[in-house]
Amino acid sequence: MQAKNPTACLLVIGNEVLSGRTQDANIRFLALELGKLGIPLREVRIIPDIAETIIGTVNEVRAKFDYVFTTGGIGPTHDDITSECIAAAFGVPWEPHPVAFPRMEASYKPGDFNAARQRMATMPRGAELIECAISAAPGFQMGNVYVMAGVPRVMQSMFEWLGPRLQGGARIESRAVYAIGLAEGVIAAGLEAVQKRFPDLDIGSYPFYRPTGNGVALVAKGPDAAAAEQAIAEVTALISSLGKVPIQGEPPEV
Amino acid sequence: MQAKNPTACLLVIGNEVLSGRTQDANIRFLALELGKLGIPLREVRIIPDIAETIIGTVNEVRAKFDYVFTTGGIGPTHDDITSECIAAAFGVPWEPHPVAFPRMEASYKPGDFNAARQRMATMPRGAELIECAISAAPGFQMGNVYVMAGVPRVMQSMFEWLGPRLQGGARIESRAVYAIGLAEGVIAAGLEAVQKRFPDLDIGSYPFYRPTGNGVALVAKGPDAAAAEQAIAEVTALISSLGKVPIQGEPPEV
Repeated sequence: MQAKNPTACLLVIGNEVLSGRTQDANIRFLALELGKLGIPLREVRIIPDIAETIIGTVNEVRAKFDYVFTTGGIGPTHDDITSECIAAAFGVPWEPHPVAFPRMEASYKPGDFNAARQRMATMPRGAELIECAISAAPGFQMGNVYVMAGVPRVMQSMFEWLGPRLQGGARIESRAVYAIGLAEGVIAAGLEAVQKRFPDLDIGSYPFYRPTGNGVALVAKGPDAAAAEQAIAEVTALISSLGKVPIQGEPPEV
Repeated sequence: MQAKNPTACLLVIGNEVLSGRTQDANIRFLALELGKLGIPLREVRIIPDIAETIIGTVNEVRAKFDYVFTTGGIGPTHDDITSECIAAAFGVPWEPHPVAFPRMEASYKPGDFNAARQRMATMPRGAELIECAISAAPGFQMGNVYVMAGVPRVMQSMFEWLGPRLQGGARIESRAVYAIGLAEGVIAAGLEAVQKRFPDLDIGSYPFYRPTGNGVALVAKGPDAAAAEQAIAEVTALISSLGKVPIQGEPPEV
């Protein structure tokens, strides 16, 4: 990938992913959406609901990447500590948000906007809201850190609003070819030569094991679609030269 | 969780997860298996196939956690650089493994054990093999770092061999209760009080949205099964006191 694309890091915050209770569904969604925006995801960290860990990790990665996205830990319960940790990371007070607080209060019946729910409208001073069409509780932005919900449908609703407002780079293009019966060890040398001819592309080799047959998928990624196409054309010729049948695209999911 | 349990960090190495091409299936598997062994997973990092990043991350986390597991990047192609990066991280030569190299060589037809395949039998000096029932190419251990394949079925075969050989702690027990129609904001205060009475447990609150009804699942985790049961009994009473119907266990997957 080229240096001009801004970089992103995702923090998945929550004991439930680390314990295996929950199968994460946010990483792939954000990876694909950010790729479309030309903001390649360069690192993901899944961390527990421990204040010291969240604060330290946020401060480390917000200095290292152009964008930091977080999912999880902004609900009303005791284990939802992301918001106050972001305030601590930025060294600002954690206080009722001037827009979110009155708006959430108005959305509840009198008496129902209790202390737990008020936490969801309490944010680091200076936070900008990330609006959400399906929940009264918004996410927020502090500097280059974008704080979103962990529940996939709520996170996706927030990202639907946020995505078009992010400053991206060239879209990451992807081209692929695959072959049944191909072994990685057989194509490796030729593939490395193609990678060397296209240093600005990421060329990856991914074996698959399917009831319909085992094989390998070869994928070229980068902001330059013509280069990706050319590289895959060369890989296609390589597959043919090895006596296998190249099929354009990714192998179908089974 | 209690201090006596050894801790684990998982490094998922591979551009394909960061780009969204591949839905990771190793994190949850290892989280659950390690939990059974009493080795709670405390952090996961997904990092790209970039040598500097792999070396730096391995050295950071092997100092910080009792166990480090890696998945991905040990195949025969140019983007498979995990093994040589582990050697660099430990400051030892990367060389043909005295057991793996001749064994792999013997498993191929004469002439087929080419340079690319030889890479899979080339390891950091001093590596101990992690055996794999379904692949000729093993994983390996260096110090507290356990290097495994990225393809889920191959990784799982390696872990089947490795798991019983790891020194674990008390198994992490989990108890749960849920209710349809319950709101997190309503149970939050009572739940926090239960968490305070059981400081050695992780008590989590997880909203769910299902065609069969929305609600919240409450989960208590820790090495002390009796404590987890007692905490969930208290949460069960709390749900009843809020006028909802508690159902033991996790809500069924839909």
